[in-house]
Amino acid sequence: MTFRKRLPPVGARVGTLAIPEDAPPPRIHVFDYSADACRESDIEDPDDLIPFIESNAKTWVDVQGFGDEAKLRRIGEILGLHPLTLEDATNVPQRAKNVIFEAYQLIIARAPQIADGKVEVPQVCLILGRNFVVTFQDRYFGFFDSVRDRIRLGVGRPIRQLGPDYLVYALLDTLVDHYFPIVEQLAESLEELEDEVSGRPGSTALGRLHQIRRQLVVIRRVGWPQREALRSVLLEDSPFITEAVRPYLKNTEDHAIQIMEAVDSSRDMTQGLVDIYLSNVSQRTNDVMKVLTLMASIFIPLTFIAGIYGMNFESMPELRSRWGYPAALASMLSVAIGMLIYFRRRGWLGSDDDR
Amino acid sequence: MTFRKRLPPVGARVGTLAIPEDAPPPRIHVFDYSADACRESDIEDPDDLIPFIESNAKTWVDVQGFGDEAKLRRIGEILGLHPLTLEDATNVPQRAKNVIFEAYQLIIARAPQIADGKVEVPQVCLILGRNFVVTFQDRYFGFFDSVRDRIRLGVGRPIRQLGPDYLVYALLDTLVDHYFPIVEQLAESLEELEDEVSGRPGSTALGRLHQIRRQLVVIRRVGWPQREALRSVLLEDSPFITEAVRPYLKNTEDHAIQIMEAVDSSRDMTQGLVDIYLSNVSQRTNDVMKVLTLMASIFIPLTFIAGIYGMNFESMPELRSRWGYPAALASMLSVAIGMLIYFRRRGWLGSDDDR
Amino acid sequence: MTFRKRLPPVGARVGTLAIPEDAPPPRIHVFDYSADACRESDIEDPDDLIPFIESNAKTWVDVQGFGDEAKLRRIGEILGLHPLTLEDATNVPQRAKNVIFEAYQLIIARAPQIADGKVEVPQVCLILGRNFVVTFQDRYFGFFDSVRDRIRLGVGRPIRQLGPDYLVYALLDTLVDHYFPIVEQLAESLEELEDEVSGRPGSTALGRLHQIRRQLVVIRRVGWPQREALRSVLLEDSPFITEAVRPYLKNTEDHAIQIMEAVDSSRDMTQGLVDIYLSNVSQRTNDVMKVLTLMASIFIPLTFIAGIYGMNFESMPELRSRWGYPAALASMLSVAIGMLIYFRRRGWLGSDDDR
Amino acid sequence: MTFRKRLPPVGARVGTLAIPEDAPPPRIHVFDYSADACRESDIEDPDDLIPFIESNAKTWVDVQGFGDEAKLRRIGEILGLHPLTLEDATNVPQRAKNVIFEAYQLIIARAPQIADGKVEVPQVCLILGRNFVVTFQDRYFGFFDSVRDRIRLGVGRPIRQLGPDYLVYALLDTLVDHYFPIVEQLAESLEELEDEVSGRPGSTALGRLHQIRRQLVVIRRVGWPQREALRSVLLEDSPFITEAVRPYLKNTEDHAIQIMEAVDSSRDMTQGLVDIYLSNVSQRTNDVMKVLTLMASIFIPLTFIAGIYGMNFESMPELRSRWGYPAALASMLSVAIGMLIYFRRRGWLGSDDDR
Amino acid sequence: MTFRKRLPPVGARVGTLAIPEDAPPPRIHVFDYSADACRESDIEDPDDLIPFIESNAKTWVDVQGFGDEAKLRRIGEILGLHPLTLEDATNVPQRAKNVIFEAYQLIIARAPQIADGKVEVPQVCLILGRNFVVTFQDRYFGFFDSVRDRIRLGVGRPIRQLGPDYLVYALLDTLVDHYFPIVEQLAESLEELEDEVSGRPGSTALGRLHQIRRQLVVIRRVGWPQREALRSVLLEDSPFITEAVRPYLKNTEDHAIQIMEAVDSSRDMTQGLVDIYLSNVSQRTNDVMKVLTLMASIFIPLTFIAGIYGMNFESMPELRSRWGYPAALASMLSVAIGMLIYFRRRGWLGSDDDR
Repeated sequence: MTFRKRLPPVGARVGTLAIPEDAPPPRIHVFDYSADACRESDIEDPDDLIPFIESNAKTWVDVQGFGDEAKLRRIGEILGLHPLTLEDATNVPQRAKNVIFEAYQLIIARAPQIADGKVEVPQVCLILGRNFVVTFQDRYFGFFDSVRDRIRLGVGRPIRQLGPDYLVYALLDTLVDHYFPIVEQLAESLEELEDEVSGRPGSTALGRLHQIRRQLVVIRRVGWPQREALRSVLLEDSPFITEAVRPYLKNTEDHAIQIMEAVDSSRDMTQGLVDIYLSNVSQRTNDVMKVLTLMASIFIPLTFIAGIYGMNFESMPELRSRWGYPAALASMLSVAIGMLIYFRRRGWLGSDDDR
Repeated sequence: MTFRKRLPPVGARVGTLAIPEDAPPPRIHVFDYSADACRESDIEDPDDLIPFIESNAKTWVDVQGFGDEAKLRRIGEILGLHPLTLEDATNVPQRAKNVIFEAYQLIIARAPQIADGKVEVPQVCLILGRNFVVTFQDRYFGFFDSVRDRIRLGVGRPIRQLGPDYLVYALLDTLVDHYFPIVEQLAESLEELEDEVSGRPGSTALGRLHQIRRQLVVIRRVGWPQREALRSVLLEDSPFITEAVRPYLKNTEDHAIQIMEAVDSSRDMTQGLVDIYLSNVSQRTNDVMKVLTLMASIFIPLTFIAGIYGMNFESMPELRSRWGYPAALASMLSVAIGMLIYFRRRGWLGSDDDR
Repeated sequence: MTFRKRLPPVGARVGTLAIPEDAPPPRIHVFDYSADACRESDIEDPDDLIPFIESNAKTWVDVQGFGDEAKLRRIGEILGLHPLTLEDATNVPQRAKNVIFEAYQLIIARAPQIADGKVEVPQVCLILGRNFVVTFQDRYFGFFDSVRDRIRLGVGRPIRQLGPDYLVYALLDTLVDHYFPIVEQLAESLEELEDEVSGRPGSTALGRLHQIRRQLVVIRRVGWPQREALRSVLLEDSPFITEAVRPYLKNTEDHAIQIMEAVDSSRDMTQGLVDIYLSNVSQRTNDVMKVLTLMASIFIPLTFIAGIYGMNFESMPELRSRWGYPAALASMLSVAIGMLIYFRRRGWLGSDDDR
Repeated sequence: MTFRKRLPPVGARVGTLAIPEDAPPPRIHVFDYSADACRESDIEDPDDLIPFIESNAKTWVDVQGFGDEAKLRRIGEILGLHPLTLEDATNVPQRAKNVIFEAYQLIIARAPQIADGKVEVPQVCLILGRNFVVTFQDRYFGFFDSVRDRIRLGVGRPIRQLGPDYLVYALLDTLVDHYFPIVEQLAESLEELEDEVSGRPGSTALGRLHQIRRQLVVIRRVGWPQREALRSVLLEDSPFITEAVRPYLKNTEDHAIQIMEAVDSSRDMTQGLVDIYLSNVSQRTNDVMKVLTLMASIFIPLTFIAGIYGMNFESMPELRSRWGYPAALASMLSVAIGMLIYFRRRGWLGSDDDR
Repeated sequence: MTFRKRLPPVGARVGTLAIPEDAPPPRIHVFDYSADACRESDIEDPDDLIPFIESNAKTWVDVQGFGDEAKLRRIGEILGLHPLTLEDATNVPQRAKNVIFEAYQLIIARAPQIADGKVEVPQVCLILGRNFVVTFQDRYFGFFDSVRDRIRLGVGRPIRQLGPDYLVYALLDTLVDHYFPIVEQLAESLEELEDEVSGRPGSTALGRLHQIRRQLVVIRRVGWPQREALRSVLLEDSPFITEAVRPYLKNTEDHAIQIMEAVDSSRDMTQGLVDIYLSNVSQRTNDVMKVLTLMASIFIPLTFIAGIYGMNFESMPELRSRWGYPAALASMLSVAIGMLIYFRRRGWLGSDDDR
């Protein structure tokens, strides 16, 4: 499940890129921008990156799809990446983290999306250099479309005026923002289930609760390291992050914490609903038993009385008595009434709603 | 649920104010006070704030309702707020926090209130500058009425003599005080439920326990960050908080901790009551089963004996015997007594109260 | 529950003393002692304290009962207490804490006692100055009687020779010692319940387990802050605590930890007993069901056979056969034996004690 | 339970020795050894210790049994013990701890043993001075026999060549080693129970699980402080512990951690077995119910049909029909077969082992 | 279980090697390599190691099998190992750890493998000196085969160019990589069980869940210390680990954390499946009960009616009535329909799939 994509064999040498067979071919999108200008281009040959990296303008290189190992390796060489960095970027999924190298800072983050009704949390790798940002994504995700628009339209706004660290903030903030609608959707599903579970829950309710719990576990497992990575970005003394950008990153970290707290609340609530569900099943078993016991306890003695006078002994004086039959019926009635009084005293005849 | 009001689309640029359509228009209330004098006014035009801010007297600006983005932005400009600060103040709910900027300190707190039987925890944003305090609330809450009276009547008391940091303390303390009656009310509901659950709990008891647990979870989720924010106010070396005010803030933090501990105790107790409730259901099922088993075990064999002598075989000598009927009755009686002795030995005939 | 005594209205100004209507009037007991001499007196007028405080001898002022706000305020003025200190001392219950002021150190502690079968944990406030100790208790408790005797009789012992910090140690140690018998009593109740629960628990066992758990929760909630306060007394660099007294306080802290560990063990054990109790109920339901099933499974088929030959069809050749009756009885017997063999194979006929 | 031996009354003055009435009289065993020589003796009069303590050779004084308070006090005086130290040494049980005094270091440790099938954890107090070690045990335990042999036979080995700190290490390591067989025995009992619980657990299985859990709780409660005390011995800068002995103590701490981890694993496993046990009970109730339901559901309708034709109405044409009896039997057969088909469809007729 | 192999008797002197009787004889494999050259040899006599250790080339000595104590001791002498180090290396299993000695660094790690369907976690001891690495394994494991190939083929790669610390990294990374397939296999077993448990789980499902949980506990217990040991390797200022190798070790630590997080997620999921399983059993008991109650509640009253008219009273006028029989049948029918309507109203007749 978790590691299915980790293809490199156990003990493989460092720098082995675990690229699945069906990986889509890389698309390399380059954004070259400054406070005044903004130029976009798709490039095929990694060597075309060199002039961008060497220029003074800020450059954002977005690499999507890992289907060509040679290209990825060449990009790594051009950017001067440590072999481990390239491995981290492409052998998905990695744990969210923040590592400062001499020439750049590596941040691995993950953003959730719903695919086929299941929560998936693809990895995004961000590399922040002095004047460039590189992002690696293993498939074609639309996570960053809104950021692209903000660069295009953002003349005079911080995204154009501040450095590449602000761009990294904008990208991370966008990724964290992707958690909100998914956590909210799970919370809404829980609220719907709450109403159902408190009433007459269907037999699928528990399974759905389990699915929600499972997805919360997935989000929690990827969200906590992400939060830690964000905290580490703030705490470690990185030469790539300027003072001006720190409050923004702090804000993003706050959002990450807020998400984790909402996830924990939802987990608590899930457990509470499981308890209610199980109690409901027990309660209904109890109700069923009560009906059975009432019926059986009333009619079995009556049937026994009827059975006595159905015996074929020759010398049963009651059978010949004129009042035998009415007396038998009367005794049956009194037994039945006695049982009813007994059950009422024990409180079993109250309506279900009262108790 | 949690994030429903977070309207700005994923990836939106910083400073986007997420103001819902039905937000009430802002009311701006200004308190200008010193040890000797105290002046109140409602203003319409944010620019009217300028003389207050520039004067030497202490100023408290209370903004309630966010229904006019332009006004809010203008207030932010006059006070020199960072774009993120304005976003935090107006995009409710945020996590409680404490951030120190160069010109002011931002504290976000939340105070609970009961609305429609549910716990709500609206956000209050406090901005503490050298000689002013600004509070932002998204609706018209009465949280601060008592503090207003204390300023009006407080000649010679610390609230007039000490600086705006004391006012911030008074506001935060008031907000924390709002937790007490609500936590106490939940604790009282729990005590009532405790009596009910130990006796014959109605079928709604578990649902009510769940509601209490849920509200405790809500209070815990907003209360912990609040406590952390208060601790951060104390620990971080803020230029806006004077030594004289620190013991007061420490006191408020103690109250916040006390509330959280009471919440945790109530959570423990809730779980204990859930266990008792479930055990009660099991116990009652057991009692019902015992009655059924007793009735069935005694009468089914008797009915069987009656059934034998109800058979129509021609050659059943007992039927013709004079003592056949009494003997059958006697055998029935001895079977019944045998069963009763057996059940008494197993302890099933003891009264429910004894066992 | 927890806060019922916090009377000051939400948002009240600092220094409001929340004194309930039925508070007993204050008794002020003064101990003035040195290595050689020891003088006791009860005083009425707080101003009589002044000579004691100003003298060089060590002074212990014990204030019990808060029924006279003016007196309390006057005591606060004489001792130079911060308004918050007086509020902490009299608005019970507060969280245990340790605060160092310039002229004195405030320690709030709590000691448990059993009242009406319930654990109560009244608050004691200790104020340690350079040459005096003041204790505040809201009612007349006997917590400190043994310490008084130790002062009276302690010529040549540390309590007379060391400073007021040793007295504070003696008082705190006495308070912590009050936890031991109560925690032990709960542990003993648990051991008794353990025997009962493992056998045939009465229906009240779970309720009693819940009561014990609840009291453990109460002790834990007040005991943890107390332990933290003790640790804080040791860790913070107080000018009022001398080196000679530190090992004693460390000892008291160890006892506080030991109590908390015993409370946690008891909580664990309580949970284990709840599990056993619930399992016992299930097991007994199972036993009841087995008896019912055995009886019903054996006799229902027999009754059916009897029912067949009780039918009144004219052409039932068996009825006329001479061997009809014995054959019917034989078939009944063989059905019964078959069922018994089946149930023995399934292991349902083993004795309850074996399985 | 835990504190039963703490006899000194609440509030007693420091240094009160809580010696039970039936305490065995003290045995004082002295080991005087150096790299070359080794002399053993039992002494009666504590004053005989003085020459040993004053000599340059290393001395190990082992005191077992506290039945003579005067002797204990005299030993304390000779060794220059703080009153609290003597109290800690003799008022058992104390929490494991490590306290450094000016003239010696006090380490309290505990070692488990099985007595009457229950885990007991008697206390051992070690006092490490510059050239002596004193051990206090409240009864005659054989914990240290192996260490004695090592001293006697250890010419040229570290126990003779290194200082008294190495002896303390050897003693502590021996005590920690006593945990291993007990934790292992509990783990083995658990494994046996695992097989039983997965099959057809007897009714005592849960009780035995509870006993194991309880003993694990006891070991955990005394083991954790012991581990912390060992860590404190390593972390605090004691003048009595030389660099050469530190790696040995680190090793002992590792063993203590390993034991705690094993205890935690066993606790986890215990909880898992409790779950399986409870599920087994539920499953068996379910199986019992299925048999009952099958029997009742098949035979009750048949008996009803027989009952119809057992009625004595005069005008029941079926009774006179030649095919009445066969038809009735056939209808009964078809009802029975119908029920069987229904139950097979619901999967209730599968063998128990399959499902 | 855990400590079964710890043979040295309690209190044994340090340096006792606990070598089981059936330990395989040691195989000593030596790798002598530098950037250019690489020489392998198996040696018999430990003294043959001396030239390797004294040479400047990097040397990897792999010792597998502990069946000859004298040889192991001689290896320890040649390498200058502390007696505790040799004990740690050979008395398996130890807790994973990292200890820096003057002449070398000791790292104990463990790697899981599946044997007979159970998770085993044999220990590997790594000793890193200035120019050598020694590994100790108690049996012949193939953990390091891939690393051997990398050295052989790695001309120009870091494993040949960097120092022995890189080799230690490569070995540790290989060991950590062994966790991935095992954790993944457990996760896959869980997913299979998830489908089964949500449907009609067999009676073995819970036992299999328990087995998985148990293996997760084992992996967790050995994995956490391993992770801590890796962190300690990074945090402690070891003279044997160069700056160049630190990022690699950080990467390995990240993988260890990732594994632990996956283990925790699987544990969470296991608990969720146990809940679902138990709920399923309860639900099925409920379903069985409903069928029984339906059948009994409908037919018992009918049988009673039939029983009445099976009585042999002489004066039962209905028996003689022409419409007696049809009327009896009609009353039975109406009772049956009444019961069905009642049960439908209570929702017990809905199909199982709906509810």
